Amino acid sequence: MGEGRHVQLSDEQRIDWLRLIRSQNVGPRTFRVLINHFGGAHAALEALPALARRGGGSGSPRIYSRDQAEDELAAADKLGVAFVAIGEADYPRRLQAIDDAPPLLAVRGHRATLALPAVAIVGSRNASAAGLKLTQQIARGLGEAGFTTVSGLARGIDAAAHRASLDTGTVAVLAGGHDRVYPPEHAELIDAILPTGAAVTEMPFGWEPRARDFPRRNRLISGLALGVVIVEAAKRSGSLITARLALEQGREVFAVPGSPLDPRAEGTNGLLKQGATPVTEAADIVSAVQPIMGLDLPAREPEISGSDSSEGLEPDASERSQVMSLLSPAPVSVDDLIRLSHASPRTVRIILLELEIAGRLERHGGGLVSLV
Amino acid sequence: MGEGRHVQLSDEQRIDWLRLIRSQNVGPRTFRVLINHFGGAHAALEALPALARRGGGSGSPRIYSRDQAEDELAAADKLGVAFVAIGEADYPRRLQAIDDAPPLLAVRGHRATLALPAVAIVGSRNASAAGLKLTQQIARGLGEAGFTTVSGLARGIDAAAHRASLDTGTVAVLAGGHDRVYPPEHAELIDAILPTGAAVTEMPFGWEPRARDFPRRNRLISGLALGVVIVEAAKRSGSLITARLALEQGREVFAVPGSPLDPRAEGTNGLLKQGATPVTEAADIVSAVQPIMGLDLPAREPEISGSDSSEGLEPDASERSQVMSLLSPAPVSVDDLIRLSHASPRTVRIILLELEIAGRLERHGGGLVSLV
Repeated sequence: MGEGRHVQLSDEQRIDWLRLIRSQNVGPRTFRVLINHFGGAHAALEALPALARRGGGSGSPRIYSRDQAEDELAAADKLGVAFVAIGEADYPRRLQAIDDAPPLLAVRGHRATLALPAVAIVGSRNASAAGLKLTQQIARGLGEAGFTTVSGLARGIDAAAHRASLDTGTVAVLAGGHDRVYPPEHAELIDAILPTGAAVTEMPFGWEPRARDFPRRNRLISGLALGVVIVEAAKRSGSLITARLALEQGREVFAVPGSPLDPRAEGTNGLLKQGATPVTEAADIVSAVQPIMGLDLPAREPEISGSDSSEGLEPDASERSQVMSLLSPAPVSVDDLIRLSHASPRTVRIILLELEIAGRLERHGGGLVSLV
Repeated sequence: MGEGRHVQLSDEQRIDWLRLIRSQNVGPRTFRVLINHFGGAHAALEALPALARRGGGSGSPRIYSRDQAEDELAAADKLGVAFVAIGEADYPRRLQAIDDAPPLLAVRGHRATLALPAVAIVGSRNASAAGLKLTQQIARGLGEAGFTTVSGLARGIDAAAHRASLDTGTVAVLAGGHDRVYPPEHAELIDAILPTGAAVTEMPFGWEPRARDFPRRNRLISGLALGVVIVEAAKRSGSLITARLALEQGREVFAVPGSPLDPRAEGTNGLLKQGATPVTEAADIVSAVQPIMGLDLPAREPEISGSDSSEGLEPDASERSQVMSLLSPAPVSVDDLIRLSHASPRTVRIILLELEIAGRLERHGGGLVSLV
């Protein structure tokens, strides 16, 4: 969406948004579909039990209660955390363009930082002295050139990137709640980041991050940035996941070359072989991202208003069984489902929503769905 | 030229070829033009004094005498060196395709090695232990995959590449005569190379290599190979010259990444930024060159027969002054000279030859010429 076309949620709407995204089987993609279909979070919340029942769920999905949402908002507020919604002025512009942008981003610190052009810097926790020094040089150079850095607050490269950017602004993306900083010894680093930078998360207040929350979190690191710099990375490391997500999101991927005899360079050299841009200093990155900074992002409506009406006929049993027979654990595109089932797009969408809310369907990128 | 269309020089022709290429102001490009124009080396040799005079030379060019040529052939023969001419069966096929291929290549050792697919490996003399180890790994892997290696016999990376290829075959390209191995302590390495590999040079027997002979020599290293691997290279090093020449010749350029904090990786990382293919092991190189190995080389006639006749009218004074007025120390294309002077292509070619033999004109790649 263009500048100046921002929306602003009412307090009531924000509570409904929080309740909806925190309810069982509702992820960012499902959230969008629900809001589009029902015209708003309130109507979607009311529809969840019926959707789950018709989708064959074994019980009613856990719905985040109004009390829970109000408690979370109050607790977050105490820590200075604001919930910014897709479409609102403070929502990071680039993040909004990704397929599975969090409907609500919990932001702590200096929100204006999120409006600056950003470059992510990630790498191994077990970094070498050379890797830490390079990270520092690159992060400083980016800061001096007017960029904010984005990273994951991990030990090693991530922490070095944040620390070198304290004067110019840096964004830490958390895999847990704002009150559950990981690793715990970086609570102090968060405190140093907040006056000039920000910490953000999509996870609930009080959420202790699990291992699988980190790869999921990585899409926000790349999503916030024009590009991702991988400084040191072993084979099969989390940084390579971030690089892959960055590519899927159309972000630039930069890799710092290293000696083939250094295992910490295996991942970055592998990225170079796959076509990542080699960089050794901040200037390399600046010259690569400057031409794309001014480009318009693909227009994506905030989609918090508008509805294709919740009324109308429910799918009948034969349509339902027809769509079900086309689904399997292998991802298939929604377009194919519509074409092959001969059902209307709206009907297929409802059936998929029901299965999803019942916990029987998973939504992937690129319009693909599969049975769980 | 295709397989089986080889020529074979007579002893007399070989002496004339050697005399012509060793005569003053005759380089590989001028050699081609002379042979084409006069129909053979013998006629060209006879024409040299008149050409130089008409070109305004201050004296007669030094012509390599028959005695000198016979002495060089005899001395070379004693060391087991053969002079192989462009177009002959043993002349390396890929080298023949370059613009300024030496008309005669002095070859010592196992000539069949020159028929194998080859990859050049070059790098800094002041190599790190890691660089030497990588060179060894890459050279061994290439040898096992059926490739011969090519390098420049220098200390450091070059020597490591040759040594690791002794079992499978390697080609050392010298910047001086076969009896003037540089550096002298690598005479022993040459001896180890010859049973399974070869040493080659275009320089005269007895020639002590000067600094400026090395960059010139580097075009043969890349010219013999499908691609060039640069293992370690500082900024502004000879290896980067080889990389540039390789690009000009349409060869693949491979660079081994290194830490940005290591000055010996500045050159290779710089090449990566310019688009060189990153490699960390032999398999990377093999998979890149295998698709191009079978490709036909651009057809280039050996051009040792055929003539546009040495007879006919000489250029007149006005044509001469017209072409002269278009020339300057800035390179200009022969095609432009023909177009702008309104003289015939043959006339322009003769005028340029005269200037060249008189030592007043330099011939560059891409059909460009300039006043000296």
